[in-house]
Amino acid sequence: MKKKQEHKPFEISTSLIDVIVGDIESKNDLSLQKQFNEFHYADIAEILDELDLEQATYVIKLLDSVKTSDILSELDEDVREKILQNLSTKEIAQEVKELDTDDAADLLLELPPERKQKVIAQIDDKELVADIEELLEYDEKTAGSLMAKELVKVYETWTVAGCLRKIRNQAENVKRVHSIYVVDKKEKLIGRLSLKDLLIAKNETKISDIYIPKVDSVHVAYNDEDVAKVMAKYDLEAVPVVDDNKTLLGRITIDDIVDVIKEEAEKDYQLAAGITQDVDSEDGIFALTRARLPWLFLGLIGGVGAAAIMFNFDTIINDYPLILLFTPLIAAMAGNVGVQSSAIIVQGLANDEIKGSINNRLLKEMLLSALNGVILALFLFLFLWIWQDNFQTALAVSVSLIVVVIVAGIIGTFIPLLLHRKKIDPAIATGPFITTSNDIFGILIYFLITKFILNI
Amino acid sequence: MKKKQEHKPFEISTSLIDVIVGDIESKNDLSLQKQFNEFHYADIAEILDELDLEQATYVIKLLDSVKTSDILSELDEDVREKILQNLSTKEIAQEVKELDTDDAADLLLELPPERKQKVIAQIDDKELVADIEELLEYDEKTAGSLMAKELVKVYETWTVAGCLRKIRNQAENVKRVHSIYVVDKKEKLIGRLSLKDLLIAKNETKISDIYIPKVDSVHVAYNDEDVAKVMAKYDLEAVPVVDDNKTLLGRITIDDIVDVIKEEAEKDYQLAAGITQDVDSEDGIFALTRARLPWLFLGLIGGVGAAAIMFNFDTIINDYPLILLFTPLIAAMAGNVGVQSSAIIVQGLANDEIKGSINNRLLKEMLLSALNGVILALFLFLFLWIWQDNFQTALAVSVSLIVVVIVAGIIGTFIPLLLHRKKIDPAIATGPFITTSNDIFGILIYFLITKFILNI
Repeated sequence: MKKKQEHKPFEISTSLIDVIVGDIESKNDLSLQKQFNEFHYADIAEILDELDLEQATYVIKLLDSVKTSDILSELDEDVREKILQNLSTKEIAQEVKELDTDDAADLLLELPPERKQKVIAQIDDKELVADIEELLEYDEKTAGSLMAKELVKVYETWTVAGCLRKIRNQAENVKRVHSIYVVDKKEKLIGRLSLKDLLIAKNETKISDIYIPKVDSVHVAYNDEDVAKVMAKYDLEAVPVVDDNKTLLGRITIDDIVDVIKEEAEKDYQLAAGITQDVDSEDGIFALTRARLPWLFLGLIGGVGAAAIMFNFDTIINDYPLILLFTPLIAAMAGNVGVQSSAIIVQGLANDEIKGSINNRLLKEMLLSALNGVILALFLFLFLWIWQDNFQTALAVSVSLIVVVIVAGIIGTFIPLLLHRKKIDPAIATGPFITTSNDIFGILIYFLITKFILNI
Repeated sequence: MKKKQEHKPFEISTSLIDVIVGDIESKNDLSLQKQFNEFHYADIAEILDELDLEQATYVIKLLDSVKTSDILSELDEDVREKILQNLSTKEIAQEVKELDTDDAADLLLELPPERKQKVIAQIDDKELVADIEELLEYDEKTAGSLMAKELVKVYETWTVAGCLRKIRNQAENVKRVHSIYVVDKKEKLIGRLSLKDLLIAKNETKISDIYIPKVDSVHVAYNDEDVAKVMAKYDLEAVPVVDDNKTLLGRITIDDIVDVIKEEAEKDYQLAAGITQDVDSEDGIFALTRARLPWLFLGLIGGVGAAAIMFNFDTIINDYPLILLFTPLIAAMAGNVGVQSSAIIVQGLANDEIKGSINNRLLKEMLLSALNGVILALFLFLFLWIWQDNFQTALAVSVSLIVVVIVAGIIGTFIPLLLHRKKIDPAIATGPFITTSNDIFGILIYFLITKFILNI
């Protein structure tokens, strides 16, 4: 579990922040420019996240828009929103022009509609405006909304020499050349060309003779998780985006997909922990309460429900109160098993590993839970028998544990599979949802079995 | 929550598997080769994961090692292990030779030591053997173990023309050219060159005049999570690996890092759900029991501990058994709040968002929990008062709920921060660990407060 400490990446120190705040307050622009020149834009964004709004705005206005546009893209959403409010539409237009079209569209999407239109009106490059407006049309979380229009495209009829000439022009607008996409005269994607192949080929060779006709692509309507799956599975660093006619529309790069994968994992993690998505530790108390309280309320209702069930077993309450000492144990085990089995199903579904029939899956979980339940119950039985010297109580608690563990495992397996089949995100079935329902079921089973064994 | 269904990536169908199994059984090699020729190696790996061992081995022996080496790299670890047992050391050496050095080292690491040596002895390319043996030396989960030796490297003294000639040679061993690394005559990394820049530059230009001296790199001893952080933060598709003297040792590509990010997220998710890492839904019942049982045992001990605590409050058990009906509620709320607060800290730590003092963090969580606790307790109090018409019980349960929620929030915040400071993975503090300890604390607090309020 120990981590190596000797070699760690660069981190923003508080002393660095202090120096920068000092320079801002004394308006020491030269020193600021010199320092920020040394930093990567992602590091500057991290620094700005630590400053207050006025200081951050000061830095943004001080630096060149080539750099600030990238910084803006990397900032925390709420910090960016506030800084953008402090900039004029002309200043924002300046930033937008420097960005790749995908980042430009993302930035514009965060502005109020009227302001967005004003910013777009300030951009004189008509082609760029058309590209951005196209990207703004696509639904959120689709391949269309993720892609950029910048790419290097060649026609199959070109020669290698012509191709190199054109690429030199196109490449100026493209930060990194991943792949060269080959299209026919109808703009239909028919293959790709690696820069490597182009370097090796002779000048007069026709592209149609050297391109690779196998090219992975994603449909513009794919959702972002599917794009992530395709790129991760086929180890792609960039993927072209096409429509129904295979017309080449844009390309998605892996760095955007890394963000999708991280966000997806964070969302599932938070759901499993009973937190509504999209909060982080730096959010305010009210935002965090909004994210946490509904799930706690669910737990509260579950607890009251469990109490109401027990309330109906008055013989047990009055004559065998010792039985009540083990309700937290039964409820906790039901919850734990439920969370374990649902988590493994949710993860399997996310990785497309779940194959075969639901019945087989339930049978497997039943055997697994039964095995776990029997082992646990055996220990519990021996312990209780020795501790309390009461065979019947020990038997009631232990037998209940076995049954409860099996039922909890089945519920934890079945609910996410059912949700998935109904096209609902199975991740909501993990965490408080499964714990609460298993608590109630577990206690009901416990009291019914106890009543039977104690013969009351 | 609904997902779009119209446009989805290709998936292996059961009918396709049936066709392939039929062809294997009738030894229809031609049809098999034709079909597999159409598929990406990642898809073939998925198909082989569905076949039984003999069928999968048959396919591996049938196909060319250029393709099978990549297929082997993509297979599930347990399937690969079994197939490798069915191959001779000579056959394995053939596969290893086709792989990039990083994948070759990973494959060799899975073999028993003696077999590994035999395979290496079968490889005639001495340089390749030296590269692989170097990679086998690095500790698991470090940049060294992730990197490949294949890269395109130029010396600052070369000209563009000489460079292009050398690159053509080097590039044959490199699947994708990401960046060209520039080194001085001592092999020290001094910068990089983009293929784009090389295409634009004149033939006689010296590399030292056109290279970009700013180049991100990672130290060979960085752990894999730090490499992932650097690459994600700076949007890198490949990163050079260096030692203390900045000597260029290898390069890591983003596709390997995507796997690290996914594995890391899965590990944290499983820990939060009480599953020891490295199992999936397709593993056998015994592997899954090994992963799940220890955490359940922890829960069992917690439940017995809670019962033992309650056992000491005999006045409550005998005279106020109704109080016992709410122990599952108190325990569940303590567990839920603990999981919420620990998850948000663990996620914040993973994203380097946790700044400032532990005290401030605990104060914030205290205010947050107090707010949540008071809201929940108010509802609970009103409900219990109306239902049971017993002011004292309602008061005891509600006041306890507030205190328990606050304490659970503080424990859930403090433990992961403490573990992180002690250089232990804070993710183990989520899930059953936090639930179990909060159950016990919660019930103890509940009974103490009740005893005080009921004045017994």
